[in-house]
Amino acid sequence: MAERLIYLPLGGAGEIGMNAYVYGYGAPGKERLILIDLGVTFGDMDGTPGIDLIMPDMTWLEKNRDRLEAIFITHGHEDHLGALGHLWQRLGVPIYARQFTGALVRLKLEEMGHPGNTVNITGARPEVTRIGPFTVQFVPVSHSIPESAALIIDTPAGRILHTGDFKLDGTPVVGDPFDPEMWHEIANEGRGVKVLACDSTNIFTPHPGRSEALLADPIREWVLSQPNLVVATTFASNIARLKTLAEAAIAAGRKVCLLGRAMRRMVSVGMETGVLTDFPDTISPEEATNLPRNQVMLIVTGSQGERRAASAQLSRGRYLGLQLKEGDSFLFSSRTIPGNERGVSRIMNALSELGVEVYDADDGFYHVSGHANRPDIEALHDLLKPRIVIPMHGEHLHLREHVQLARAKGLAAEIAVNGNVLDLTGDAPKIVDQVETGRVYLDGTVLIGAMDGIVRDRIRMALNGHALVSVIVDEEDNALPDAWVELMGLSDRTRGGADLAGHIEGELAEFLEGADARTVGNDAKLDEALRRITRQVSMEEIGKKPEVTVIISRLMAD
Amino acid sequence: MAERLIYLPLGGAGEIGMNAYVYGYGAPGKERLILIDLGVTFGDMDGTPGIDLIMPDMTWLEKNRDRLEAIFITHGHEDHLGALGHLWQRLGVPIYARQFTGALVRLKLEEMGHPGNTVNITGARPEVTRIGPFTVQFVPVSHSIPESAALIIDTPAGRILHTGDFKLDGTPVVGDPFDPEMWHEIANEGRGVKVLACDSTNIFTPHPGRSEALLADPIREWVLSQPNLVVATTFASNIARLKTLAEAAIAAGRKVCLLGRAMRRMVSVGMETGVLTDFPDTISPEEATNLPRNQVMLIVTGSQGERRAASAQLSRGRYLGLQLKEGDSFLFSSRTIPGNERGVSRIMNALSELGVEVYDADDGFYHVSGHANRPDIEALHDLLKPRIVIPMHGEHLHLREHVQLARAKGLAAEIAVNGNVLDLTGDAPKIVDQVETGRVYLDGTVLIGAMDGIVRDRIRMALNGHALVSVIVDEEDNALPDAWVELMGLSDRTRGGADLAGHIEGELAEFLEGADARTVGNDAKLDEALRRITRQVSMEEIGKKPEVTVIISRLMAD
Repeated sequence: MAERLIYLPLGGAGEIGMNAYVYGYGAPGKERLILIDLGVTFGDMDGTPGIDLIMPDMTWLEKNRDRLEAIFITHGHEDHLGALGHLWQRLGVPIYARQFTGALVRLKLEEMGHPGNTVNITGARPEVTRIGPFTVQFVPVSHSIPESAALIIDTPAGRILHTGDFKLDGTPVVGDPFDPEMWHEIANEGRGVKVLACDSTNIFTPHPGRSEALLADPIREWVLSQPNLVVATTFASNIARLKTLAEAAIAAGRKVCLLGRAMRRMVSVGMETGVLTDFPDTISPEEATNLPRNQVMLIVTGSQGERRAASAQLSRGRYLGLQLKEGDSFLFSSRTIPGNERGVSRIMNALSELGVEVYDADDGFYHVSGHANRPDIEALHDLLKPRIVIPMHGEHLHLREHVQLARAKGLAAEIAVNGNVLDLTGDAPKIVDQVETGRVYLDGTVLIGAMDGIVRDRIRMALNGHALVSVIVDEEDNALPDAWVELMGLSDRTRGGADLAGHIEGELAEFLEGADARTVGNDAKLDEALRRITRQVSMEEIGKKPEVTVIISRLMAD
Repeated sequence: MAERLIYLPLGGAGEIGMNAYVYGYGAPGKERLILIDLGVTFGDMDGTPGIDLIMPDMTWLEKNRDRLEAIFITHGHEDHLGALGHLWQRLGVPIYARQFTGALVRLKLEEMGHPGNTVNITGARPEVTRIGPFTVQFVPVSHSIPESAALIIDTPAGRILHTGDFKLDGTPVVGDPFDPEMWHEIANEGRGVKVLACDSTNIFTPHPGRSEALLADPIREWVLSQPNLVVATTFASNIARLKTLAEAAIAAGRKVCLLGRAMRRMVSVGMETGVLTDFPDTISPEEATNLPRNQVMLIVTGSQGERRAASAQLSRGRYLGLQLKEGDSFLFSSRTIPGNERGVSRIMNALSELGVEVYDADDGFYHVSGHANRPDIEALHDLLKPRIVIPMHGEHLHLREHVQLARAKGLAAEIAVNGNVLDLTGDAPKIVDQVETGRVYLDGTVLIGAMDGIVRDRIRMALNGHALVSVIVDEEDNALPDAWVELMGLSDRTRGGADLAGHIEGELAEFLEGADARTVGNDAKLDEALRRITRQVSMEEIGKKPEVTVIISRLMAD
C-alpha cells in the first residue's frame, strides 16, 4: 500500500490547552511518528474539582511507541510542555527544543526525576533535524514567551508548516521579530508549503494584532502618574512584558521587586540562556518594605486569579511583609483567560475594598495578545499559500470559523478534533480513522483517568452531600438494630426542625427489625435497601438525594 | 434625639444580585423602615456547590419587623423578587408593586403556599403610597423586563430617588419610554432630589446605551438570511426581545415555537396583564417538527448556559422531538453574565459540533443591555441634580468607580456595602453603624446559613475526596482489629499500584492492636488518631489529604 502523511491531534484540537499533535509518514498503520508538544490544561471546580493538572491520554502513542521518533516542543508554555514531566517516561524518546524552551523542559523532567539530557537543544532554521522520514526546522515566531517556534516539517509527501502559537510582531521587545522575507523563502522553497497547521485562538478577533513594543509608552506613563505603591501582574512567562514593566519602574525612579516563584524562575532562565538581557536589578520583599511606597514597584504572579499566587495573597492582606493600602495602584497587564473571570473579579474587588485603584487592560493600553488575530491569520495564509489548512489550537467554534475562512480563500481545509486521523497525502485532507483519546488527571501525586469515576463521585458529593450508614450484623445474620448515620455536607436539620440523621436512623432501624435473613445476609441487597431508604427520607425531609455509602460490619463467631 | 434618614443595604451593595435595600426614618434605633426588593443570586460550583438559590440574611430585619412598614418591588427579575417566596413569611408585611411585577410576585408567593393577596398592585406616578413617614411613587423606567420602576421616596428629611435597574430608552419596544420631561419635574418638585441611589452595573461601559428598538432590523435581516431551522435564545423575562424575535420570524415567513417553561410563563403573564400586546401566535414543539425546517423559528431559554434549559438540551441532541442539524442557525441574543462564560461556551461548542452555525451578540447587532451605561448615569446625575449619590447594584469596583464619578461632579457620594448603615440626614452621607449581614442558602427545600459549614464540607470533599473509617469496639473496650475503610472520590490505587484502602486498613489495624484502653475507650481520642493516620497514609501514597469521617461502633453487653 502506498505511503501516506497523517495528522492526529491527541490534545488541543477542539479545546484551547493540552496541546499534543502527532504527524506520521509511512505505510498505513506503520507510519513513523513525531509528536509536537505535550502540554497540560488546568481544571476547574465545575468539571474537575481537586485535580491538579489535566493531560492528554497517551495510551495510543504508548502502544505505538516503537513507531515514535521524537518529541518537538515549540515553546515554553505549560499548555505545550507541562505534561512532559509526567508522561515523557511512557514514551521515552528524545526531545528537541530551542535553548530557552529546552532549559524549561529540563527543569520539568528533572523535577520528576528524569534525566534532563534527553533534551536536544536545537538552533533555529536553517539548522535541521533529520529523524525518520522527517526533516524538521525551528522557525522563530513571536508569541508571549521568548523563543517560540513554528516548525517546518519536510516529508516525502511535502512540506508541513506547524505554527505553534504565534503572532506577527515586528518589534516584540524580547525575541525574534517577524521577518516576512524568511517566510517568503519558506513558502517558495521546493514545492512550497503543502499543509499549514495553524493556531486558531484569535480567529474571532477582527482587528490586526498589536505589537508588544506599543505598550512601553502607556505603561511608563501609567507608572509615572501613580502616587503610592505600584503593583503590576502579568503572566510569569511573558518576559518581554516583565522587561517593559521593569523598565517603566526604573524610568519612574522606582525599584523593582518580583513576587512569585514562577516569575523569578522565568527571569533567571531567561538571563541564563541569554534571551533576556538588560533586565534591571531587583530588590527583595524585605528591601521593598524599607523603601518609601512611591519608590517601589512590585511585579507579581497571579494575573489569572490563582488563589495561591502573589496577587491573591496581596488582595487578602499582608504578604511577605508587604501590605497594600488606600491610594496604591494595581495593574492587570494581562487578559483574563475565559473561565477565569470569577477568580480575577474576586481579587479585583478585594483590592478595591482595600482602597487600591485597580487598572485592567480592557482598553488595550496595557496588554497585547500573543496570538495572531484574524487578519494576521489571513496574512499568513496569503504569505505561505498552503494547499491545505488544518486549524488547531482552538475550541470547536474556532476550528469551524478558521475552516470557513480558509475555504473562502479557495484553500482545502478540514476540522479535525482530538482523535481524528487526517490523511494529508492528496490534495484535500480526509478523515480516515479515529483513535481513542481522552484525558488523564494528575490528582495529588497519582495519575487517574477522566472516566475512572473518581471525579464524578467528588462532583456528586459536592452537589448532593454524602451520607454514611453503618450497620453491624451479628454472627447469626441478625442486624443489630441501631444503624448509625453520619452526614457530611448536608443540613443536620429537617424543614420541620428535627434531627435528620436521627430521623434516618429511626427509619433504618425500623426496616432492620422487619428485614428477613435473606436481605440481611446479603451485602448487596442490604446495601441497596439501606441506601434507598436513606435517599428517600432525605428527599422527603430536606429535598436532597445524597450520595450514600453503606458500611456493613459482620461480626465473626469467635 | 433628632430624627434621621438612613440607608442600609442588606444585599446588592458590593455584589451584583440579591438586591435588598432598607430605608428608615425616625429617631435613631427607632426608625420606621421600608424594604426595597428582596432578590436572589445564583450559586456556582466554585463557592456554593449544590445550592439552589442564595438570599440575603434577613435576621436583622426579622428582629426589627415591628418597625418594618412594607416591601416595595421595583421589577420582576429574580435578583429583585426571587427571595420573596422563601423569606416573606419572616417579615409578614404588605408588598407593593406595579401590575405585571405584582403578578410575578403573586406566583412566587403562591408557589410557596403564601397568600397572593398580600400584594398591593400600585399604579405608576402620580399615584402615591403613604406608609409611615414615607410617600412612595413608582416611576416607570426602561429595563430588560416590562414595567420596571424607579421609586420616589419622599421623607420628612427629603426626597430619595431609588433607580432600581434602569436604562434611558426612548423606544423600548415594550413598556414605558424614557420621558425627560417627567424626570425634570421629579428633580424640581419641592426641595428637589436629596439622594440618588443609583444602579452601577454598567459604570465601566463608556459609550451611551442603545435602544431596544435598534435590534429589530438586524434581527429581521439575520432571520431572513438563514437557510434552515433558526433558534434564538435570550432571557425569558426580556419580553421586548421576545417580541422582536417573534416578529422577525413572522416577517421571514416562519412560525414561532417557544421552548422553556419560564419563557412561556413570562409571555402569558405579559399578555394577561396587558403589557404585551400583538405577540404572534405560537406553535407547539410537535407542530414545529411537522413543518419544513425553514418555516420554523424556536425561541428558547438557556442563554446563560443553564444545564437544564432548552438551549443546553438542544445542544446535547434531541429535545421534545426537535433535533438540530448541519446548516441550522443559533443566535445568542444576550450577553453572558460574568461567571457564566464556561457554561455558555460549552453549549456553543456543542452546537458547533452538531454543525450548527452559532451567532453571538458580541458585535452589538443582536443585543442591547438593560442597564444605563456611564454616560447615561452621568445624564441622570445631571437631570436630577441630587445632593448625594449612593451607588448600588454593583460589585465593590463598580461602587468605587461610581463614587469617583459623582465626586468629580461635586456631588457628595459614599460607598456603602451590605451591612453599612448610612446616615443621609445631613449634606453628606456618613456611615454611622454596621449591621450583621450575610447569606442564606436554599439547599433542596431547607434554608441553611452560609456559615453553617455544610457547603464548606462539600467543597472539601470535592477537592480532597472523602475517606470513611469504621471500627468496632467490643464490650470491654477492645477495638476489633479489622478497621474498615471506604474511599469516595479518591484513587483506589497508590502510586506504586497497591490497594489504597487496604493499605490504610493495615496501618489502622496495626495502630489498634497497640492502642491503649484510654485511647480506645475515648471516642474523641480514637477518632482523632484514626483520622490522623488515614490522612497521613493517604498523603504519602497518593499526595492527597482526604476529609475523613470515623464511625466508632461500641458493642453493648447483652
